[in-house]
Amino acid sequence: MKGTVAFYTAHLLCLVLSVVCVVLVVYWNSSYRGGFAWDHKAKQFNWHPVLMVLGLVVLYGNAAVVYRIPLTWGQNKLPWKLLHAGLLLLSLIFAVVGLCAVFDFHNAGNTPNLYSLHSWVGITTTVLFAMQWAAGFGAFLLPCSPMALRVFVKPAHVWMGSTILVLSVVSCISGINEKLFFVLKKSTNGTHSYAELPAEAVLANSLGVVIVAFALVVLKILANQSWRRPDPRSEEGEYRSLRTDEH
Amino acid sequence: MKGTVAFYTAHLLCLVLSVVCVVLVVYWNSSYRGGFAWDHKAKQFNWHPVLMVLGLVVLYGNAAVVYRIPLTWGQNKLPWKLLHAGLLLLSLIFAVVGLCAVFDFHNAGNTPNLYSLHSWVGITTTVLFAMQWAAGFGAFLLPCSPMALRVFVKPAHVWMGSTILVLSVVSCISGINEKLFFVLKKSTNGTHSYAELPAEAVLANSLGVVIVAFALVVLKILANQSWRRPDPRSEEGEYRSLRTDEH
Repeated sequence: MKGTVAFYTAHLLCLVLSVVCVVLVVYWNSSYRGGFAWDHKAKQFNWHPVLMVLGLVVLYGNAAVVYRIPLTWGQNKLPWKLLHAGLLLLSLIFAVVGLCAVFDFHNAGNTPNLYSLHSWVGITTTVLFAMQWAAGFGAFLLPCSPMALRVFVKPAHVWMGSTILVLSVVSCISGINEKLFFVLKKSTNGTHSYAELPAEAVLANSLGVVIVAFALVVLKILANQSWRRPDPRSEEGEYRSLRTDEH
Repeated sequence: MKGTVAFYTAHLLCLVLSVVCVVLVVYWNSSYRGGFAWDHKAKQFNWHPVLMVLGLVVLYGNAAVVYRIPLTWGQNKLPWKLLHAGLLLLSLIFAVVGLCAVFDFHNAGNTPNLYSLHSWVGITTTVLFAMQWAAGFGAFLLPCSPMALRVFVKPAHVWMGSTILVLSVVSCISGINEKLFFVLKKSTNGTHSYAELPAEAVLANSLGVVIVAFALVVLKILANQSWRRPDPRSEEGEYRSLRTDEH
């Protein structure tokens, strides 16, 4: 009971931080960066931070903790698996569209792609995520995949899930930091440099802090052994029990 | 036996990546950034990446995995505790001197401190590390600290240890990325911009990749339950058995 209250407190924190992340990244790019368009210019770039934070952090983190919700433990696992895989597919699509936004923007301006450390870590994160999704689909959702394979793959899947979230955070923080150095310049028409810490800098730095806090809460939920779904044989039973449910 | 071989493989990888990290960060700053001095100018700044990588990543990570070495499990825990605490104190000193290097550099050039997201995450990491060291010293090294306190504090200490390493990596990657945008500019005297990916950019980006790889190996070692020192009561016995050893 004590563990359940602690879990739901952590989960509530996770949900609140999710909302704050989304509000801050959308507000930053709509109010300070000129909003959104798909015009190969700055407004197209603005989709990049929004979609990466929404995909690789917020949706990803929330999808990762789905199995930890005690309310779901008494239920058939398959619908929750489908929710887990579905949210992660949506998250992957957001990330890929977010990458397209920045590649298009670079190509239109003849700026090279994939030169910065931010981009090296970011592209690695997205590729690992795509591989993880495909491997997870093959191992845990295809009915023909054998139980022995699922049991063997699961620890690596769980570990890689946390690792990808860590890499996402590294990508986001280096990206926000880089963006603020790019755009915040002192000028005669009253704009301020990053070093003067104008309102936009405080807002986007705060977004970075909230992303880090959100990821740490998710990683804590994932790492807590006593918050894991307590039925290790649930893989075996789910298709059978679903068929039983259908009668 | 299989677990022991896997541990030593991971530990060897951890040591190899440590050496590569140190070689790359020292080579980068000595060969491309002009070397080291304590002159409040660029050469003083160069201590910052070297000391942060050496302190907050390499020494920190190696100190964190000391208890996981199976060779030490049959031995009294206290000498290994002293090594753990000693390496971490050295690591904290390196981090603090590394921060002094950049604060001095900024102050001499009238550049504000602590405005970037990199600096916000970095200073938080160092403050958390200092608090973690002090709390660890109080709870685990002071002979008067009660067993109940140690058992209560240990999971939080282990969790915070991994968290601080994640924050260190976020700080390092955002810092290397920022530094390369600052210094790599295209000019008429033949220097290249970051976007042209000159040799320095490849070197420093590679340093970033190796830092991430090192941290992931350390986090994997820390997360593996079967690699934990198997004696949960070792806290109780160590002072008594040390006194017995002395006879």
